[in-house]
Amino acid sequence: MTTEPMTTAPALSSTARSTLTRKRDRAASDRRALHDVLDEALICHLGLVLNGSPVVLPTGFGRDGDTLYLHGSTGASSLRAAEDGVDVCVTATLLDGIVYARSLNNHSMNYRSAVVHGRARQVTDKAGKLHGLRVLTDHLSPGSWEHARGVNAKELASVTVLALDLAEASVKMRTGEPVDEPEDVEHGTAWAGVLPVRTVFGAPEPAAYVPGEAPVPDHVARRLS
Amino acid sequence: MTTEPMTTAPALSSTARSTLTRKRDRAASDRRALHDVLDEALICHLGLVLNGSPVVLPTGFGRDGDTLYLHGSTGASSLRAAEDGVDVCVTATLLDGIVYARSLNNHSMNYRSAVVHGRARQVTDKAGKLHGLRVLTDHLSPGSWEHARGVNAKELASVTVLALDLAEASVKMRTGEPVDEPEDVEHGTAWAGVLPVRTVFGAPEPAAYVPGEAPVPDHVARRLS
Repeated sequence: MTTEPMTTAPALSSTARSTLTRKRDRAASDRRALHDVLDEALICHLGLVLNGSPVVLPTGFGRDGDTLYLHGSTGASSLRAAEDGVDVCVTATLLDGIVYARSLNNHSMNYRSAVVHGRARQVTDKAGKLHGLRVLTDHLSPGSWEHARGVNAKELASVTVLALDLAEASVKMRTGEPVDEPEDVEHGTAWAGVLPVRTVFGAPEPAAYVPGEAPVPDHVARRLS
Repeated sequence: MTTEPMTTAPALSSTARSTLTRKRDRAASDRRALHDVLDEALICHLGLVLNGSPVVLPTGFGRDGDTLYLHGSTGASSLRAAEDGVDVCVTATLLDGIVYARSLNNHSMNYRSAVVHGRARQVTDKAGKLHGLRVLTDHLSPGSWEHARGVNAKELASVTVLALDLAEASVKMRTGEPVDEPEDVEHGTAWAGVLPVRTVFGAPEPAAYVPGEAPVPDHVARRLS
């Protein structure tokens, strides 16, 4: 077990939510780290308050510069709440490893996590919605925007696109080997180390209605590297 | 892009938070599905409300029957808030695949997600805390409880253990191939199918202070299968 893992977030204390701009000397590298985590994570978890209670839902997203895009059905209550301009928290987490220490108390996880606070705004103009959908598509399935049949007017009307500025955001991470107590390092006999965790893609499975001879297109196949 | 993916959660509407007990005929299978998702997910995202705003943080967890255990440093503000008996939302998500459709609008993700609402209670008695830590350990790193140096009194005092009943919980999932519009199935030429996503473990990396000849113990090595 660990006392310093994912749950301890000084940058996210209740009295001072972290902003990158407050730590000016670290801002540039933090910004790059933030972008890297957001770009590598396939999904995020969207948190909002509904009737006074927290709700956390997994969802797709995409990043363009310092804007995060989210989307969903116009009928989804969580998106409707976010449309209304309530505060949201978007968290994207990459689990990199299980950290085995000689003591249970120093077991931990290696991870990188981006936490974004803000008020999402609904994108309502056609060009802006299409741009947001393109950013979301390029994140989830790069190449699909050029390859697949485009969004028609009815489909565009049925989707809600939200934009969230990356103004108030932080990155937390743990990397490297376990940290054990000096007495355990010296006298312990238990194994200690890191078991890496990775997210990988498997062999593409064509839909039944795709002709058997149709090759898997490059934009899908290249993700298998 | 899709209008029915992760963000649309009818079971999580603002007017009727889902409970498994309300859907009696599906309760048993839903309960099994809930346990399966929670047991397979390595981490969860903990949501709570701090100063009126949502906060979502990644954290470890463990399940024993219908109780979920969380833990963290006694100094972590998020845990302190949860200790006070505020509502929390714990969400664990397994991403199973990227769903490529012939139309952008029907792109989606295959996933399984467990969402638990409730009020976490702090576990304060020694036996209960140790039990919670064991459940957390068995989830994060099965075998470590028996292998590693145990938790001493000081370490036990420094950790907060929270318990959350799986009373109000739901599972959402999408499985299977893409669903395209009839006209795209008939006349479309774009590739459609599923790109599987999996979480895998890599080769264990021993800590520098572990003797080179020390073998990776079975409880770690067997996770590589």
